[in-house]
Amino acid sequence: MEDSREKQPQSAVEANVPQAVVSRLSLYLRELQRLVQDCHAMTNSTQLGALLGFTDAQVRKDLAYFGQFGYPGIGYRCEELIAAIKKILGTDRSWPVAMVGLGNLGRALLHYRGFSQRGFRIVAAFDIDVDKIGELVEGIEVFHRDDLAEVVAVKGIRLAIVAVPGAAAQAIADSLVAAGIEGVLNFAPVTLALPDHVSRVGVDLAIELEQLSFAVVNRPENP
Amino acid sequence: MEDSREKQPQSAVEANVPQAVVSRLSLYLRELQRLVQDCHAMTNSTQLGALLGFTDAQVRKDLAYFGQFGYPGIGYRCEELIAAIKKILGTDRSWPVAMVGLGNLGRALLHYRGFSQRGFRIVAAFDIDVDKIGELVEGIEVFHRDDLAEVVAVKGIRLAIVAVPGAAAQAIADSLVAAGIEGVLNFAPVTLALPDHVSRVGVDLAIELEQLSFAVVNRPENP
Repeated sequence: MEDSREKQPQSAVEANVPQAVVSRLSLYLRELQRLVQDCHAMTNSTQLGALLGFTDAQVRKDLAYFGQFGYPGIGYRCEELIAAIKKILGTDRSWPVAMVGLGNLGRALLHYRGFSQRGFRIVAAFDIDVDKIGELVEGIEVFHRDDLAEVVAVKGIRLAIVAVPGAAAQAIADSLVAAGIEGVLNFAPVTLALPDHVSRVGVDLAIELEQLSFAVVNRPENP
Repeated sequence: MEDSREKQPQSAVEANVPQAVVSRLSLYLRELQRLVQDCHAMTNSTQLGALLGFTDAQVRKDLAYFGQFGYPGIGYRCEELIAAIKKILGTDRSWPVAMVGLGNLGRALLHYRGFSQRGFRIVAAFDIDVDKIGELVEGIEVFHRDDLAEVVAVKGIRLAIVAVPGAAAQAIADSLVAAGIEGVLNFAPVTLALPDHVSRVGVDLAIELEQLSFAVVNRPENP
């Protein structure tokens, strides 16, 4: 990413788009899909912003990073904008995903329907507990971690969700990298060291609560 | 928050600190606690940055939002910086938390040890399934949602984790607001409308995977 500042970006996407903008893109997509469910064909930056608590200017500025989507004086066609955002986010295709670690959280995530609704198919689960191997959870077969490379290759898995204890996470990450995984969604409360060609997103649930307590104690009325 | 731009901030915290800085503060805290576990008394911005893949300048700039913490030429005393960050994040105290919704995710979150380790004590759980009411999960009593206001008051609960289906989330949020909750960590895949005096953090697990697919498809080598 450092290099890209020195090159002329090939597209808006290659320009350093702030992480916050990409996060908001997902929120726009979620609201657009809800609008379509509610039989709305069109929307505009004011409506989309109001649904999320953003200004219309914010919505337009965020989308402008990626191109020109609306029609002046008319707004956005919901289905068209949904297709455009999915393409940008890479969810215009289906991603085969591995779930690593079947403790409480891993198991809960296997049952979570939101992933498949958004194009992520968990196609294999991995654990080290021999009692779990061969089991089917939500129709997904559980494999031993030692078979990771083989299963990843056979099933063409590109992304992995890591839900193992912190102490085990880096070793798992190393195995995933060796198996050719391209991106890791990490729920273990550690920062994984990954090579540059492997993308990562970390979700530390306790940190999310810390962000909330920060917001509460730093509200103007709570000095 | 809009107003604060017109006023002289009372402290660095009241100046509009970017959300990304607050997130990184949590990461610094996590690494500092690990350093202390590994018997390190001192650290510096280079080491702290390297553990997280940030530059030393980034670490210093982030911390500078909140004051002066290090000793020139020496670095940071880990325990001192931990105490300072905890104070900023509001985790220098214990927060009584309610868990609302005991589906797969809610149950998994009740079992999650990371919350209590960071100062968040789940003291009550709520559901509408009468079979679950009165049950103890991880020692935490399950109440009916109709008793929310009473239990929140009796137990002095200030934060709530919402892990109900999307369609039920706004009604639950309204009940939580009415009960006097100050902050909501929302796992439902909807943007909650909350009054200004109630803080919110949203975690949409599918969106986290979307952020990952975005990162993968937008890597320079994956045009």
